[in-house]
Amino acid sequence: MKKSALQIARAAYRPQLPIVLTGGVKVVEGQPTQSAGDQEEIAKLFPNTYGLPEIVFEKTSANTESAPINVGVILSGGQAPGGHNVISGLFDGIKSINRKSRLYGFLMGPGGLVDHKYKELTAEIIDEYRNTGGFDIIGSGRTKLETKEQFDKGLEILRELNIKALVIIGGDDSNTNAAILAEYYKAIGAGVQVIGVPKTIDGDLKNNVIETSFGFDTATKVYSEVIGNIQRDCNSAKKYWHFIKLMGRSASHIALECALQCQPNICVISEEVEAKKMTLGQVVEEIADAVVARAKEGLNYGVVLIPEGLIEFIPAVKTLIAELNDLLAAKAEEFAAIAPEEQRAWVISNLSEVNAATYESLPAGVARQLTLDRDPHGNVQVSLIETEKLLSEMVGKRLEQLASEGKYNGKYSTMHHFFGYEGRCADPSNFDANYCYGLGFTAACLIGAGVTGYMSSLRNLTFAPINWVAGGIPITMMMNMERRHGEMKPVIRKALVELDGAPFLKFAKERETWKVGTCYTYPGPIQYFGPVEVCDQPSMTLVYEQKRRKY
Amino acid sequence: MKKSALQIARAAYRPQLPIVLTGGVKVVEGQPTQSAGDQEEIAKLFPNTYGLPEIVFEKTSANTESAPINVGVILSGGQAPGGHNVISGLFDGIKSINRKSRLYGFLMGPGGLVDHKYKELTAEIIDEYRNTGGFDIIGSGRTKLETKEQFDKGLEILRELNIKALVIIGGDDSNTNAAILAEYYKAIGAGVQVIGVPKTIDGDLKNNVIETSFGFDTATKVYSEVIGNIQRDCNSAKKYWHFIKLMGRSASHIALECALQCQPNICVISEEVEAKKMTLGQVVEEIADAVVARAKEGLNYGVVLIPEGLIEFIPAVKTLIAELNDLLAAKAEEFAAIAPEEQRAWVISNLSEVNAATYESLPAGVARQLTLDRDPHGNVQVSLIETEKLLSEMVGKRLEQLASEGKYNGKYSTMHHFFGYEGRCADPSNFDANYCYGLGFTAACLIGAGVTGYMSSLRNLTFAPINWVAGGIPITMMMNMERRHGEMKPVIRKALVELDGAPFLKFAKERETWKVGTCYTYPGPIQYFGPVEVCDQPSMTLVYEQKRRKY
Repeated sequence: MKKSALQIARAAYRPQLPIVLTGGVKVVEGQPTQSAGDQEEIAKLFPNTYGLPEIVFEKTSANTESAPINVGVILSGGQAPGGHNVISGLFDGIKSINRKSRLYGFLMGPGGLVDHKYKELTAEIIDEYRNTGGFDIIGSGRTKLETKEQFDKGLEILRELNIKALVIIGGDDSNTNAAILAEYYKAIGAGVQVIGVPKTIDGDLKNNVIETSFGFDTATKVYSEVIGNIQRDCNSAKKYWHFIKLMGRSASHIALECALQCQPNICVISEEVEAKKMTLGQVVEEIADAVVARAKEGLNYGVVLIPEGLIEFIPAVKTLIAELNDLLAAKAEEFAAIAPEEQRAWVISNLSEVNAATYESLPAGVARQLTLDRDPHGNVQVSLIETEKLLSEMVGKRLEQLASEGKYNGKYSTMHHFFGYEGRCADPSNFDANYCYGLGFTAACLIGAGVTGYMSSLRNLTFAPINWVAGGIPITMMMNMERRHGEMKPVIRKALVELDGAPFLKFAKERETWKVGTCYTYPGPIQYFGPVEVCDQPSMTLVYEQKRRKY
Repeated sequence: MKKSALQIARAAYRPQLPIVLTGGVKVVEGQPTQSAGDQEEIAKLFPNTYGLPEIVFEKTSANTESAPINVGVILSGGQAPGGHNVISGLFDGIKSINRKSRLYGFLMGPGGLVDHKYKELTAEIIDEYRNTGGFDIIGSGRTKLETKEQFDKGLEILRELNIKALVIIGGDDSNTNAAILAEYYKAIGAGVQVIGVPKTIDGDLKNNVIETSFGFDTATKVYSEVIGNIQRDCNSAKKYWHFIKLMGRSASHIALECALQCQPNICVISEEVEAKKMTLGQVVEEIADAVVARAKEGLNYGVVLIPEGLIEFIPAVKTLIAELNDLLAAKAEEFAAIAPEEQRAWVISNLSEVNAATYESLPAGVARQLTLDRDPHGNVQVSLIETEKLLSEMVGKRLEQLASEGKYNGKYSTMHHFFGYEGRCADPSNFDANYCYGLGFTAACLIGAGVTGYMSSLRNLTFAPINWVAGGIPITMMMNMERRHGEMKPVIRKALVELDGAPFLKFAKERETWKVGTCYTYPGPIQYFGPVEVCDQPSMTLVYEQKRRKY
């Protein structure tokens, strides 16, 4: 690998560990815990791993070295900046337990465990990847570890390699599955601990014990950099409305954080759209209002941030998609036989009145996407819908109408962007480099403590890393029962944007000013070597959320 | 303006001036110059400003302070990182001539001069914009200064404000117009000097006396950052071919620089496509070849860089577009009356055989764009054509064919990106911050020297700024006659990628290795505060080009 100058310089960076992890640690157990909801069902489903206490590590001067241990690690799901540092922290952690400990990486995600594809991660390999972005050290994948067959197949290779602990780095689903795997291995006496690590750029794996998932900080900083650059362009050329879609299928944390960083004219928050039961027309109207208001001031330009998942949060579109999925599954053959130019009419005549009206209100291109681009299960591929173009087109139509009524006489030219892949594999910010390394090291301490079904945890994250509190949270503590594919399942509760939470309230307080005033802020690129206030600031979401907490 | 932490830290950055500019300067004149081509015609068109000598500044201990001077400045055309530093260097430069000198900025581009829209740029305003990206200090615009009426109208306000020198910051066209304006003001004895500054992220304003235009360095670093991030994602998920279109209508310097920085699997260079008279099918075949070769190694992923202007460099597409423009202009009414579903057949039957064949080979969506999306002059809007999707779709079709012949059995999923607006207004790299500040300061020295029709020049750019050579180049020296809109005009010769130039040769030497090997490099974000090798490297294009030169 030919390394860039920055890669070479960053390889020398030593992540800052919490002071408690810089020597031997002892375990301090808290009170037994309960699940976030549905305590009775969850307790029944996790007889061996329910109700465990929270764990906090404290320093000890006792000799804590113990026998060498072989550990496996898996990267699960979408990439997030810092994954390599979790693995290097884990590596250093198990080596601090015993220099003869070994680390095995399963390749291309959970599938590597099931298919017995792995490689040993030696010091030489680890050193190539410290402080770098990406998951390329062992690759990642989306296979879900859910079935007994998979668990048993995995156990074969774990036994073969004498692996006594498995670390699963993943999002809410992967950590849910880590808990189920932990329970199963405990139940059958497999002698394998399972530890989870909270990963996702979406920021939706957090709760009152997990302050943030890793990767959110870096990814939102990369998006904020390019959004800031576009805003500066927008404010220099003064001739375009830029519609920028941002990753985040289920939650709008990314869009909200970028809005707090960049102060765009508009940022749509899916959770608010849903809570207010807004129609697509109302979302369009809000944006059109801003365009009209700015045009009155002679400002025929602006920036709109849109979360990727928006369309699924609009109740009317959600019910339309649900009916379309059913309809096209039930009448697949009939639909396939219809000539392309007659499909639209057929769809409208086969939908219920309400959904037909919604369907008719959509631009032709989007309507076509809803019926044509379907995944192998026959479902609409919502991620393919170009929401940014959908909205800008509908806003344009609305403006034409307003112009014909004499209520608008500005110019409206648009540009579209989608940022996602640009941020998932960026070199981790100092925050994520430290956080991830610490999470990996803490996972090693949890392994050393002999526990299973825990998530690695660092808290106090708005303080300097030296002050961070390291420990473990029983994964069952974050669970409740939810309907998934028609069945009630135990799952980690996803953290959506809370409309009474500090980050949203801050945004809601400022947004009217940002709308017509041009209050753009330009965060610039992530810096690694400069002043602390430039290089070491955590996300604003985290800062606002933690301000309200006390330790 | 609420400033980000980085903006605040960067405001304190003091650009490094060439040592010769750190005290009083004296002018050293070289030999009289000739234009790049068509010497006789150019000499005739520029009787007062042709054949001027190159100028180099040297230090002098003599007192160089002189009377205060009022100067006007214009930002012309597309944004480029560092424009604000040109203006702050110019400001500091004219203040060093005399503290009572004043700087006026004309608003929203050359149109501001004609329409008498301006503001005085005071120290307070300038200090707000030092080392920042964007052109928002006075805005930019695309009005072309071409007519005597514009020149005379401009002169009114210049006289009113007692402005004796005008600095035009722009690309090749704007500098051509600066030369024409300089000639005109000289001819009529207006007493207004005109100085140009070489700007464009495209990198196509350079020659044997101008080493690079400002903004290219920063913009390509921003694009390389996000391309590197996408490559890392590509190499972690191992499941997508990413097609990335990059800005650059006329020249492929941006794509080439990003390729040298990031080492993608494929980078298409428009100039090579044209030189080899390649068809669209051949470009597709080259990419498909790489997909097949990588699939054989089990690598069903990759990254392809595509310059924005590619399609216009493909001779067959170029002649098709030309005929379409003529056809649809001549038969506009007939075409408008045809039902949408019959337009395609109508176009094919009305085109010459060769162009009809090219048209038929295009995916339906692109073919539709070629006939429907037209600018107010009836011309195809080439910039709206999604070349990245066009190519990926055609590659997909070709792969299906190869699969049916048993020559390919990989998986082919694609993602598309277009990067342009993300880089034009980024905070300037240290290189661009220094280069721009120096160009502005040098422009002030040229004003002090009383010359007109010159472009501000800094040379020796691969050395530390302290060693840069400052001076002025007569703009006529870069000109030749070219056909524009049917007429022969004097213009600055555009610098395309030279296929025998060092940057392309370096790329050509490596690209076979990059194609099947996965040799991605990850440049990461621009750094301002770290080690010199991370923060102060000029573009690789500049380094390779200058290696072959001697001073």
